[in-house]
This record gives sequence, C-alpha cells and structure tokens, in this order.
Amino acid sequence: MSNPRARAQAIAHNIDCIAIGRQLGSKALTVWIADGSNFAGQSNMTLALDRYLDSMREIYAALPADWRVFLEHKLYEPAFYSSVISDWGTSFAAAQELGPKAQCLVDLGHHAPNVNIEQIVARLVRFGKLGGFHFNDSKYGDDDLDTGSVEPFRLFLVFNELIDARMRGAEGFAPAYMLDQSHNVTDPIESLMQSAIELQRAHAQALIVDRSALAAAQAANDALGAHLELKRAYTTDVSPILAMARLRAGGAIAPIETYRASGYRKHKAKERPPVARTSAGIV
Amino acid sequence: MSNPRARAQAIAHNIDCIAIGRQLGSKALTVWIADGSNFAGQSNMTLALDRYLDSMREIYAALPADWRVFLEHKLYEPAFYSSVISDWGTSFAAAQELGPKAQCLVDLGHHAPNVNIEQIVARLVRFGKLGGFHFNDSKYGDDDLDTGSVEPFRLFLVFNELIDARMRGAEGFAPAYMLDQSHNVTDPIESLMQSAIELQRAHAQALIVDRSALAAAQAANDALGAHLELKRAYTTDVSPILAMARLRAGGAIAPIETYRASGYRKHKAKERPPVARTSAGIV
Amino acid sequence: MSNPRARAQAIAHNIDCIAIGRQLGSKALTVWIADGSNFAGQSNMTLALDRYLDSMREIYAALPADWRVFLEHKLYEPAFYSSVISDWGTSFAAAQELGPKAQCLVDLGHHAPNVNIEQIVARLVRFGKLGGFHFNDSKYGDDDLDTGSVEPFRLFLVFNELIDARMRGAEGFAPAYMLDQSHNVTDPIESLMQSAIELQRAHAQALIVDRSALAAAQAANDALGAHLELKRAYTTDVSPILAMARLRAGGAIAPIETYRASGYRKHKAKERPPVARTSAGIV
Amino acid sequence: MSNPRARAQAIAHNIDCIAIGRQLGSKALTVWIADGSNFAGQSNMTLALDRYLDSMREIYAALPADWRVFLEHKLYEPAFYSSVISDWGTSFAAAQELGPKAQCLVDLGHHAPNVNIEQIVARLVRFGKLGGFHFNDSKYGDDDLDTGSVEPFRLFLVFNELIDARMRGAEGFAPAYMLDQSHNVTDPIESLMQSAIELQRAHAQALIVDRSALAAAQAANDALGAHLELKRAYTTDVSPILAMARLRAGGAIAPIETYRASGYRKHKAKERPPVARTSAGIV
Repeated sequence: MSNPRARAQAIAHNIDCIAIGRQLGSKALTVWIADGSNFAGQSNMTLALDRYLDSMREIYAALPADWRVFLEHKLYEPAFYSSVISDWGTSFAAAQELGPKAQCLVDLGHHAPNVNIEQIVARLVRFGKLGGFHFNDSKYGDDDLDTGSVEPFRLFLVFNELIDARMRGAEGFAPAYMLDQSHNVTDPIESLMQSAIELQRAHAQALIVDRSALAAAQAANDALGAHLELKRAYTTDVSPILAMARLRAGGAIAPIETYRASGYRKHKAKERPPVARTSAGIV
Repeated sequence: MSNPRARAQAIAHNIDCIAIGRQLGSKALTVWIADGSNFAGQSNMTLALDRYLDSMREIYAALPADWRVFLEHKLYEPAFYSSVISDWGTSFAAAQELGPKAQCLVDLGHHAPNVNIEQIVARLVRFGKLGGFHFNDSKYGDDDLDTGSVEPFRLFLVFNELIDARMRGAEGFAPAYMLDQSHNVTDPIESLMQSAIELQRAHAQALIVDRSALAAAQAANDALGAHLELKRAYTTDVSPILAMARLRAGGAIAPIETYRASGYRKHKAKERPPVARTSAGIV
Repeated sequence: MSNPRARAQAIAHNIDCIAIGRQLGSKALTVWIADGSNFAGQSNMTLALDRYLDSMREIYAALPADWRVFLEHKLYEPAFYSSVISDWGTSFAAAQELGPKAQCLVDLGHHAPNVNIEQIVARLVRFGKLGGFHFNDSKYGDDDLDTGSVEPFRLFLVFNELIDARMRGAEGFAPAYMLDQSHNVTDPIESLMQSAIELQRAHAQALIVDRSALAAAQAANDALGAHLELKRAYTTDVSPILAMARLRAGGAIAPIETYRASGYRKHKAKERPPVARTSAGIV
Repeated sequence: MSNPRARAQAIAHNIDCIAIGRQLGSKALTVWIADGSNFAGQSNMTLALDRYLDSMREIYAALPADWRVFLEHKLYEPAFYSSVISDWGTSFAAAQELGPKAQCLVDLGHHAPNVNIEQIVARLVRFGKLGGFHFNDSKYGDDDLDTGSVEPFRLFLVFNELIDARMRGAEGFAPAYMLDQSHNVTDPIESLMQSAIELQRAHAQALIVDRSALAAAQAANDALGAHLELKRAYTTDVSPILAMARLRAGGAIAPIETYRASGYRKHKAKERPPVARTSAGIV
C-alpha cells in the first residue's frame, strides 16, 4: 500500500496495541500484514518491502525493552500475486534488519506446498530468530484446521526439533505458543480442547525419543535405525500419560466427554441469545 | 553426511576446482551440494547445516580475493526428506555467515510449487546477495526444460526485476547468467540456441517497459493500469528486434533454421562415432 | 451433508433455478456444491458421493430436453479435508452416471498445483464431456484473478486445445464460456473488459497456429519444431487484429482508456449512493 | 511416441510378459507407460491417448479370461510437460474404454501436490475400478520412500477406505498389493521388512476403528466426534498385536533386530562379490 496515511494509521494501531498489552502484562506483539499485490506490476516489490521495514522500525522503536515483536509470514491470501512477507526467508531478513527484539513467527499453514516445516523451525532456531508459533493444521492452504488433525507426524517432528533445541541449550530459545484456528463445523471449545491434547501428545512423544540412541544412529549413518528411534516414540500411545497429567493438574481425564456431559454449551446458549453466524464460524 | 573423510574429500575437490578456474580465468565457484536425508531422523538437521558451514568456510578461505562463491539451493532431489540448503532463506543465511564473497544462486526449477520466483530474485537483490542464475523452465519439479518453454511470462517477470535493479543502481548488483538444462528429446544445440533467444526476448521485453508510467500507476494504486504497463511490453513481438541484433552481431537471423540447413549435426555425426546414450541425454 | 432436509432444499432451489432460466431463455444449469468435510472421518466419502448422485438425479430429471447441466469440480475450499466433487475424474464419473445432458465445467483455478489443465480440457473433449469454462487466473489456489494475468501461455494452450477440437470436428463439442472472477483491487468493469481482451488474444493466437506444420512436426517426432509452431503464434502480437475487430463490431479500439476517459464510473457513483463494500469486492 | 514400430514393439513385449506370467501362475499385468511430452506442442495430446488406447486394446485382447490388467497413472517424470496417463481420471476413463478386465492401479507417489489420495481410492472402489496399489511414501514427487515413513496418517486413511469397502461388500473389490520403493540409503531387506510392518500397522489400526460409532457420529453431523473415532484407532499402539501375529506365523518378534543380529548381509556379501552400484541403489 503506497498510501502514507494508511501506513501511518497501521503504525499507530500497533503502537496502541503495545499500550494495551502493557496493561495486560503482555511481553510480545505479533505483526502479520496482509500487504501484497494481486497483479504483476501492481506494486514494486522492493519498494513495498522498504515501506514495510520503515513502518516496522517505528513500531520496533516503540517496543518496551523486555518485549519482542514477532514477524509472521504467509505465502498468499488475501494477496494473490505477491505478499510482502511471503516466506521465512523474508521474515528472517526483516527480523535481522530490525534488531534483536524482532523474531519470526511460524504459522504451520502459511507455507508453499511440500516444504519441510520442521526444517524451517530448525533453521530459525539455529539463527536465533524463532519467536513462536501459530498452531493449526492444513492440507491445501491456510486451512486453519485443528492442530494435529491432518498430518500428526509432522506436528511430532516440529516438537522433535523443539526438544532437540532445548536439550542442546540453543541460545535465545524461548518460543511463544499460540493456537490460530478457524472452527467452522465443530464446537470451538471442543476443538480447542482437542488441539491442546494433540500438542501435548506431540510434546510427550518428542520427550520420549531416546536421544542418545538417535544421535548414535545418526553418527553411524544408520538411516533406518535413526528413523526408527523417532518412529518408536511416535507410535507409542501416550494417551494414558496425558490423562494422568490432566488428572494431577486437577483437570478432566476425558475433557471432551466431560464437557459434553456437563451440558455447558446448552446452558450458556440459554443465557446468551443467538447472534448472527459470522464468517469465522459458530460464535 | 557425518563422515569427516567424505567431507574432506569434497572440500579438497572444490579447492581443486578453484585452482583449475584460476587457470581458465574464472572468477566464481558455484557450490550445490546434494546433502540431505531421506528419512525423518536420519540426520540432525541443525548439525548437518553446521557441518556444511564448516566445510564452506574452508572453501571460502581458499577463494581468491576477486572471486565470488555462489550457494545453490534446491528443495529436494536427490534427498527426499530434507536438503541441507533447501531454500533461498537457508542459502541467504549461509551466505551471510560466510561473508561478502558468498552470494546466492537461483535455479528457476529448485523451488516449492507456487512460489513467486521473481520476488525471491527481488529479495536477494535487496539484501545484496543475488549471485546469479541457472536458467531453465519447469512445470513440476527440477524438470530442467528449455528456458521460457513452460512459463514465459514468469521469465519476463524475472527480467523485469533485473532491469528494475539495474535502473535503480542496486548496490553490488552483478549477477552471473548460466543455462542449466537437460535435453532429452531435442538436439541440445538447437535447445541452447532457442533458450538464448528466449532469454533475449524476456530481456528486450523488460527493457521496453515504460518505467515512469509504471511507477506513476503504482504510486496511484492503479493496480490494473500498472499491470497493463507490463503486459504491453510482454505482448509486444520483439522477434524482429532480436533478429536484427543477431544480424548486426554477425549471426544468423534464423539460427535454428540456419543450423538445420547447414547439415552440421549430420556432418559431425560422421566424424564422431556414436557413444552410449547417457542419462543426461543425447551427448 | 447427511441431513435430508438440507438436501431437499438444495434440490428444490436448483429446480427453481431451472424455472427461472426457462423464462430467461437459458439452456444450461451449472451446479457447484460446497459439500465436503474438514476432518478425516467427518463424512463417509462414498456415501457423500452417493447422496450427491441421488440429488443430482432429481435435478437432472427436471431438466428440459434441450438443456445441459454442468458439474463443477473444485479441489478444496470451503471444505478443507475432502470435497465431494474434487477433481475432473469425479466430475466425469458423475456426469457419466447422470446421462448425456450432464457435462463437466472447468474452472481454471479449481485444480491441484502443477496439473496440466489444457490436458484435462483435451481429455474431457475426447470423452465427450466438456461442458464449458469458468475463466479466471490463479497462482496459488482459487484466486479468481483476471483471466490471463498470471499464466497467459497456459490460457493460450487451453485455446489451442479448443481450436484443435473444433478443427477435428470433435463430437458434441459445444462448450459454454463464462468469466468467474473476484475483483478486489480493480474496477470490475475494467477487469471484465481486460479479461475479454485476453480471451480474444488467446483465441486469435490459437487460430493463427499453422496446424499442418504442427501436425507434420509432431508426426516427425520433431519436439522443438512442433513447440516452435505454437510459440510462433503465441509471440505474435495480435493486438492490432483485436483492435480492428472491436472497431468493426462498433466498439472502442482501446476499451479501458475510452471507459476511463468517459467518466462513466464517476457519473454512476453520483447516481447510486455508496453501499457497504462486500467481501466480493467493490460493487 | 508416434512411431508405429516402437508401439508394436511395446505391445509385443507386454504380450510376452503375459506368456511368462502364465507360466509363473500370475493373474494380472500392470502397464505403466512413460509416454508423454516435454514441450507444449510436441505431441497432440488427444492423438497420443488414442494411440495408447489402440495399443492397450491389443494387449487387452491377449489377456487370459481370468486375468486383469492394471493401468498405472503418473503425473510427471520422465515426461515433464504432459503424460498420457497422468491422473486417475484418465486412467479410469481408459479402463472403462477397455472393458471389465481393466482396472486402475494407485501408486501413492504419482499424484499432484495436496490431493486427497484416500478419496481417490474411495472413488475407484465406488466405480468398480480399483485394481491395486504400489505402496511407498513421498513428500515431494515420486520419491519412492519407505511406506509409512512420511505421512503415516495418510496410509492409515487409505486402509480405512479399504476396510470400509470390504465391510460394505463393495462389488468387485479385490485389490492387489505391491511395494514399489527405491532404497538408496538403507539396506533394501530392512526397508522391505519395515514397510511390511507399517502396512500391517495401518491395516490393524483400520480394523479396530469402531465403525458403528463412526457411522453414528457421521449421521449426527458430529464432525469432531467422527474424527476422534478414527484418531482413537490411529493413536492406539498396535505394535504388540503385530509382534504376536508375527510370532504365531513363525516369524521374528523384532524382524529388523533379528536380521541385523543374524549377520545375513555380511554372510551373503562374502558369497557374492560386489558389483557396481546401480542407480536404483544398493543391490
């Protein structure tokens, strides 16, 4: 967007968000911008990035000393020819230009088909720029489906990189974890519970990988042996561990069944009169 | 590859190549490595990159002062789970680690489906790391088809970025241009001639873009108007210009027809007895 | 959707559309259904297709004798795990089940990445089931951008198949042509004019292919020679032909410039008070 | 390939294969043809399909009465612009033209990015044309990696369709199962054992799906509930069941460990002098 007033408004809005966040005790701001173009030639892609960097520098300058700003990339949509921050490479280069408080945010659904997302995570860790995640799952584009519902093995492999980074003591490794999903055909409360369970499952499975056996197989170039170390953890049913952890934390062993049995939704629906269904789903 | 002897051998081979290049008057070395893995877990993706960087530092140290080294990324093949230098982001980060003589090489067929290659070119220019190109064309993967045969408009858009960079006087902009194709069903000499023509066509079309009209439309957020400035150049038939340029340079107006009429291939085939067809095509 | 009442409503709606179409002089009905699922397991994919076929049989039975029904496939969106009519194969099989009045509609943006759309067109022609087109262009998904703005060579290749079919006298070849675009950053009237020009350009270029030279090169397995026959037509600038055809038809030589100069939009904007911008763009 | 002699040779070769298969007790022939083109225009895609169908009719005519012929589709490679049998739609249409003995073979790695393979399986079952499988796994293209190593949930979903078809008593449902993998970095014997285990795992998990609970949730449009029925089976660790089944069949509880401990490879390596490594890997 080459209009300076529109940019000034967006900058001011982000600075307002920081002020609100301070009152809420937040320590980070995520910036995803929809800027891009629908037609080759519509915008000069280099100048568009420069305008983005100029604007972000103003937002960055307004960040409190102990805050971070997360730059979120997305391949396409709503822009269908080019997006200013289209991939992790651009996000990374921009974060470097801005400074140490700028890091990259990985939304699992914002990549080109076929790319290896867990390797992108590993690369951002390696270069000190992994800020955090928007978790969800997808088969086609930015589908925003429930985490772990499409490619659960990929989710496990992402957590495998996170545990690897933590065990190695990767410098500055402190990712923020968020869910970013769209619930169109499910009860959002149920989907959020199930997504949390899937994240815990992937986390628990990554924790039980025998990392010294894995490292030994890797060092010996035993490709199948190394792979089977990961597969052994992944095929282990950690559901009982997760249920016990929930119980110990004072939660329900079977969250969705308990929620359904409680009649919470029916009860709340009486309290709150129905409103129009929005495009984001059942509200 | 975690085997230190294999790496030492590869480093020595690259240093040998530099020595040969010096004798030939070369000023650049391209490094594409096939390293990667076929199975999740087969290699630790972070350590694999560190080994790559360690090895590249030795090669970089052996570069003459006025040479550049081009890092070539590729999404997949021959490795089918992960590739160490899989995308421009990794290539860019590695080039930064190595130093100013390291730059990135863009092979048009080495990207994930759907990505905007001309924007990658613009990003590398913007961050001072565009080393050069392997030109070819592709529809599916690293197809190595003749340049301009699949998506000629994309090729034009790449040249549009190159002309934009040159006109802007982008710092350190001096890309190297190479063809990297595999000719399986055509006479390679004919394919090379036709590829050169297609590169010249895209170059000439990018040169005739009315850049002040384009900039004015962009500044006015006239998306269609800006797009039509590019389209006007792209739909102009520059074939007569290219033919006249060839004639003035002492070449053939119609290179492929002239070559076919000359009987060169038949003549050479008599001189050289046929050899086995290699996997790289008719040699 | 397993709810029989929802299906009955959809069937009744389509039958209503036929009644309206009769009054308007229409001869065809297009059915695109958004049915599908967001989660593996959400629906039994076989039963979902059977329900679709049952419903379509009722609609088919209500078609006048001289009408056709066009089945439109789409890979994904709004369903993000499975779509009932996801690809041309399913559309084709369904059209066969329904009978001779059922044919397939190709929307250029409804396919998986990388597929050869012009070959899908050729296949549907070959098996007597090409009903028509929704023209648009796309780089990522169902982007609904202006026709010919992303991959103009692909559009030419689609028309090349259409001309080939017409010249061969392919049985039952009578496709319907429609534009299906979303204009978010342009004046829709301008985009529609430009899209019409691009369709005419592709049509004109396909008409000037030297088809006997093409067939001769194909018969001789001269891959490059055959390709260059297409390229020769594609790189010819047919803009003057198109402008003259417009003039002879009583239209403007330069439609967009004429429209801009006329002040039509400004004039109409005064007549009609602005309404809220819908998600489908400037209305 | 428009050369009639090359086609005649290919037809004769397939008829020879039938003769050999009769002696071996085979009941099926798989035909995958590499035919296609690298350049738009190189071949007339309609005539190329007609030539394929003419040739296949001759092979079909030579099939014994109790044999089937499996048509294998593949999106690309070795042809990089068009493949004659590029997708399941073409394969299905061709199988219909040929007759009841012709069915379609699904190689898991031969599809466009993002497509829903389990739905393709369901469609072929529904229309009576599922012939069988080439099992393997892939992330990018026709990677031919070990079955279940990339997307194990997808493999489970394929088996979920197979069990669904068997339970429904789908007419003519009798798929043939084959592995089609390339083992470049592993011992092929180990990879084959592991692939068999992964197929059994997916099969066992699909068998323990509570199909009446699944059907009930589907009928109630309970999307998450239905999904969780599948997930419950998929996250169950069936490894002990598989180990016991192997033991009861007289096999090893831990096949790969037993094989490694046996020293079989080392022993055989002594018996057979090493030969040149072929492009298909360690032989």
